Amino acid sequence: MLEELKKLITEVKPVDKSIEPAIRARLADLTKPLGSLGLLEEIALRAALVQGVVKPKIGPKKIFTMAADHGVSRDGVSAYPREVTPQMVLNFLGGGAAINVLARHAGASLAVVDMGVDYDFPPNTALIDGKIAKGTKNFTQGPAMSREEAARAIIFGAALAQGAVEEGYSIIGAGEMGIGNTTSASAILASFSGLHPSEVVGRGTGVDEEGLRRKAAAVQKALEVNRPDPADPLDVLAKVGGFEIAGMAGIYLGAASRGAIAVADGFISTSAALVAVRLCPALEDYLFLAHVSEERGHARMLELFKNRAILDLGMRLGEGTGAALAFGVIEAGAKILSEMATFSEAGVSGKE
Amino acid sequence: MLEELKKLITEVKPVDKSIEPAIRARLADLTKPLGSLGLLEEIALRAALVQGVVKPKIGPKKIFTMAADHGVSRDGVSAYPREVTPQMVLNFLGGGAAINVLARHAGASLAVVDMGVDYDFPPNTALIDGKIAKGTKNFTQGPAMSREEAARAIIFGAALAQGAVEEGYSIIGAGEMGIGNTTSASAILASFSGLHPSEVVGRGTGVDEEGLRRKAAAVQKALEVNRPDPADPLDVLAKVGGFEIAGMAGIYLGAASRGAIAVADGFISTSAALVAVRLCPALEDYLFLAHVSEERGHARMLELFKNRAILDLGMRLGEGTGAALAFGVIEAGAKILSEMATFSEAGVSGKE
Repeated sequence: MLEELKKLITEVKPVDKSIEPAIRARLADLTKPLGSLGLLEEIALRAALVQGVVKPKIGPKKIFTMAADHGVSRDGVSAYPREVTPQMVLNFLGGGAAINVLARHAGASLAVVDMGVDYDFPPNTALIDGKIAKGTKNFTQGPAMSREEAARAIIFGAALAQGAVEEGYSIIGAGEMGIGNTTSASAILASFSGLHPSEVVGRGTGVDEEGLRRKAAAVQKALEVNRPDPADPLDVLAKVGGFEIAGMAGIYLGAASRGAIAVADGFISTSAALVAVRLCPALEDYLFLAHVSEERGHARMLELFKNRAILDLGMRLGEGTGAALAFGVIEAGAKILSEMATFSEAGVSGKE
Repeated sequence: MLEELKKLITEVKPVDKSIEPAIRARLADLTKPLGSLGLLEEIALRAALVQGVVKPKIGPKKIFTMAADHGVSRDGVSAYPREVTPQMVLNFLGGGAAINVLARHAGASLAVVDMGVDYDFPPNTALIDGKIAKGTKNFTQGPAMSREEAARAIIFGAALAQGAVEEGYSIIGAGEMGIGNTTSASAILASFSGLHPSEVVGRGTGVDEEGLRRKAAAVQKALEVNRPDPADPLDVLAKVGGFEIAGMAGIYLGAASRGAIAVADGFISTSAALVAVRLCPALEDYLFLAHVSEERGHARMLELFKNRAILDLGMRLGEGTGAALAFGVIEAGAKILSEMATFSEAGVSGKE
């Protein structure tokens, strides 16, 4: 499994920059003052580089929402009971959650993946079974999972994304559900950034001051007990991560390995992207950061990436909801390059 | 005409807040932590209040892009020559401009309006003729237009929006094109805010330092020569505004007078919204601010409104491009209320 992970990483190639001058020339020749579409132009350029064309096209869109439970959720780190993880998975399957509404709105297909929920779901053809175990172990007492399990979850996610690209999807987002998982994402952020536990934890689904202190204490203990090595991203993931986080890291790597755009959502899915980028720096060429979450540590986490996030709507829900909204903006950016007229085509005078 | 304007203003009624507790109760009962969708929930609430329902629906969408010339454009305040205004109108009609691409992307119908372009367009069934005059007078030497012309342009815009609502449009955006019009919008901002001319001018389509100084000087001179009275918004509009700015003020008032959502775009269209809100404070209930423009004075201008802007993508193009992108987010917000399941419907446990 570790060999398969190495192979996956080598399959993600940096984008070919030889086409960049041609893309920039077209952006400069479209009927608008240069740079006046701001981030939309940057998105257009990046999408074009991913696709290796001057006129990018965002085709069918897909979101994977991955769920798993966390051993640490037994330590009172969440405002909601552990049972909410499987309940929300059933809500996703029933079509009533925010991600169902926003994926539909974005014209995106939604796939729900059980990466490690502590529940025996009744057979459901719409639920993808990637269950590694019924929740991680409590990482305040030892590693959340084995190194082998972490690699297995990544490979599973990558295979899903690769299959989706083969089906024709060109933009793939990942989101999550898992009671306790902001604590895991906070521990990942602390591991890579060196920030103090009190700086990386936030309200999550809505804990009070006491809950916030419990989260910081859990992160502190996790770091002390496990000593995750930031130079070894798989070590960080295995020791303080989660199965859905590993699965999302796989989604990004799998999408990139097949030349598709990968879209990270909020705090937890960005922690997965962080692990994936540390495993494979070339991934950043393919990775779009959907939004700045209201979750406190997210802004600090985003600083660890090259590109800025697209939206800032004060959201902190996860599930892939931010990714779904960002899809529309990314597609708009691509259309700027592929559908606008140039100054000469439109007979418009240039700058004086 | 001034009587008609008074009548229009009285037709904009504050939204009925009696339904607000029911809307808030539903937002709290949807399967997500309360407030976790951030601005999307605020948008949902406001859209529901505009429509007077608990489950708002964004139906057909429309954008009016209004063009006009400005006397002040002869003073070297723009990076582009005056001829670009009619050239871009023809580009809008040809479908090659950014607003064509982004309106299509948003699923919005686009209407192009000549409010006062200094050009005789060949007959074109797609161009709406609202021409008040062939450009405003140079407001550094006297009023840009008469009070009566300002009122006439507002009424014309309002009639367009009212007609659109009667046709079934429920969300109406306004954008603009007019070489020189950031200088006019800057003068409007200075008039209402008391900010110094050097604080309200920005790069517009891309002037250099020297151009920036010319813009500030033009604004300063316009204020000295005309002494616009901030307590009399029509006076400000007539003295330092533009025909497209007056038309957009009319679009917002007309939409609100028929119970539709009105969406302002960037710096110039927000200056129109500012005039309209000062004429009719009840308009703010219906008004959504699409984005924070990169144009320097916009952030200061937005502070004069009750609600925050939706997007911040570093855009500074105008035309309605920001409004088009915001349509998608506003519709997403409305769908949260109308399409998500409640905790009881989905069988999900609440907060512990």
